[in-house]
Amino acid sequence: MKARLEICLSGSGGQGLILAGIILAEAAGIYDGKEAIQTQSYGPEARGGASRSEVVISNDTIDYPKVIKSDILLALTQTACDKYIKNLNQDGILVADSTLVTEVPTVSNKKYLFPITETAQKKFGTKLVTNIISLGIIVGLTGVVSQEAIKKAVSSKVPVKAKEINEKALLLGFDIAKKLKAKEKESK
Amino acid sequence: MKARLEICLSGSGGQGLILAGIILAEAAGIYDGKEAIQTQSYGPEARGGASRSEVVISNDTIDYPKVIKSDILLALTQTACDKYIKNLNQDGILVADSTLVTEVPTVSNKKYLFPITETAQKKFGTKLVTNIISLGIIVGLTGVVSQEAIKKAVSSKVPVKAKEINEKALLLGFDIAKKLKAKEKESK
Repeated sequence: MKARLEICLSGSGGQGLILAGIILAEAAGIYDGKEAIQTQSYGPEARGGASRSEVVISNDTIDYPKVIKSDILLALTQTACDKYIKNLNQDGILVADSTLVTEVPTVSNKKYLFPITETAQKKFGTKLVTNIISLGIIVGLTGVVSQEAIKKAVSSKVPVKAKEINEKALLLGFDIAKKLKAKEKESK
Repeated sequence: MKARLEICLSGSGGQGLILAGIILAEAAGIYDGKEAIQTQSYGPEARGGASRSEVVISNDTIDYPKVIKSDILLALTQTACDKYIKNLNQDGILVADSTLVTEVPTVSNKKYLFPITETAQKKFGTKLVTNIISLGIIVGLTGVVSQEAIKKAVSSKVPVKAKEINEKALLLGFDIAKKLKAKEKESK
């Protein structure tokens, strides 16, 4: 794995991407023993409707804390996907919500499409766990942090009342990642 | 006011400083029309027991998103105060919890001491609003964001059930700031 990994979690306000970024950074920085920085930017850009939460994970001290080129891009809306795809590394991967991102950009990157929000609603009766399912998918696909670390970070950061549902949502994300990988193998 | 302002909110995990940082950044970036970046770092340092949430607010594009020298330092624990005081600008101000920070560093900076956590417990029966009272004090003392903006940001970011108590906590913070300023004038 690269010494410095940059993750961009993008969508719109209210999709829980700030919390997802914090959880990912804590998983890396507190439970996996790496360095991690999590950032939100607000300004003219954020007011445009696409919001993002950034995480940089490194084995060493992080000099520049913001994402320069993403290695992993999560896109939960079309607007966010269109905006941040330009910033995806050539060998970076795109994880997108297939219901909300209907026009997938024609880039040569690896793409993993799944109806994440819809699945959250169907399986758990609420879209609120979309962010945690997404984290499960990302970690399952990439191993950017260990599964143990992300489990601990999720448990420690979500409200006590919502702990069980979020833990299940994370496991579902791992499971979806497995299926997406299997599908990818088949199509080769 | 300076074109770039750097704020460091420090204490220990569980004191709600990440949320406070996010609220402050949203107040500046969404409601006051400025640029704002909010950052958390995790690594060996965070594992040492002192945690911090950083906010940079600027009238222009923010080149470097992390705090270099704080203009405002909030310290809610002795450990955090001892650690981050070194990074306070010469003309920067320190806001510290006077119950928890008993050994105030001998620096020439303006210092505002108040038993914030104790007041939260006494007035609201919970320490959970310490972060919001602190924001009220900071904004009341410095005007780093407008009172209107921070009110909107608090209302939009805290859980619906806790909205009223947090709005009251913010107003109490403004009030404490007024008293701290009056006390300062008297002592001159």
